[in-house]
Amino acid sequence: MKLDAQWITGFVDGEGCFHVGINQHDDMRAGYQVLPEFTVVQHERDAQVLHAMKAYFGCGVVRSNHGDRMAYRVRGQEHLLERIIPFFVEHPLKTKKRLDFEKFRKVLLMVEAGDHLTSDGIEKIRAIAGQMNRGRSR
Amino acid sequence: MKLDAQWITGFVDGEGCFHVGINQHDDMRAGYQVLPEFTVVQHERDAQVLHAMKAYFGCGVVRSNHGDRMAYRVRGQEHLLERIIPFFVEHPLKTKKRLDFEKFRKVLLMVEAGDHLTSDGIEKIRAIAGQMNRGRSR
Repeated sequence: MKLDAQWITGFVDGEGCFHVGINQHDDMRAGYQVLPEFTVVQHERDAQVLHAMKAYFGCGVVRSNHGDRMAYRVRGQEHLLERIIPFFVEHPLKTKKRLDFEKFRKVLLMVEAGDHLTSDGIEKIRAIAGQMNRGRSR
Repeated sequence: MKLDAQWITGFVDGEGCFHVGINQHDDMRAGYQVLPEFTVVQHERDAQVLHAMKAYFGCGVVRSNHGDRMAYRVRGQEHLLERIIPFFVEHPLKTKKRLDFEKFRKVLLMVEAGDHLTSDGIEKIRAIAGQMNRGRSR
């Protein structure tokens, strides 16, 4: 199955999620690890579409999620910065999910700059992450 | 907001619904009315996208749905047959929702042919409608 860039943008406007997790992690300098993640969840009968997205972006994994759901997931900072983010900069989302994407991008650039290694930086990242994915009942 | 055909296909693969309602209706010859309906539901903050779809297809209405949700809805048989169905024939859905679309199209062609005016036709339509939108928890 070959996907078109605009189809992917429309599908992600509906089904995609940009999320930033922040976990305690004693090995990190500021005591926290920042885990940005791009996911698309579907019923397992549409796993083929998730595999086609993985092939399109050339990164990420397709795994089972909860019950009969499957997820396409990209977590690696390099893949997010070099493949996922440039794609959605070039093909902007049309729903308000674009605002989540912009916060997601901002956090990744802060992590790239090493901001997450200071307590001050972690607090800024936490504030941005806390404003994401609000008002979306999924 | 201007929409691309492939964006619409991707968005409907995620968020769209093809539904066939069958209601008792004493004025109809076989005692039933067939109500095919294409809908896309979104949080009200993305009403703009629904209005853009209405403008693209040149038919349908945008109305509030439940609570903070809005719906773009096309019900008219003529608009479904002349605008919605040709669009998704030309730009096929990529998820299994395509199978629902194909059943939806079949029912509309049966109604167009007057099959819904006989008890036999209504039973056939009911059987097809009963196979739609299964395994989708939304």
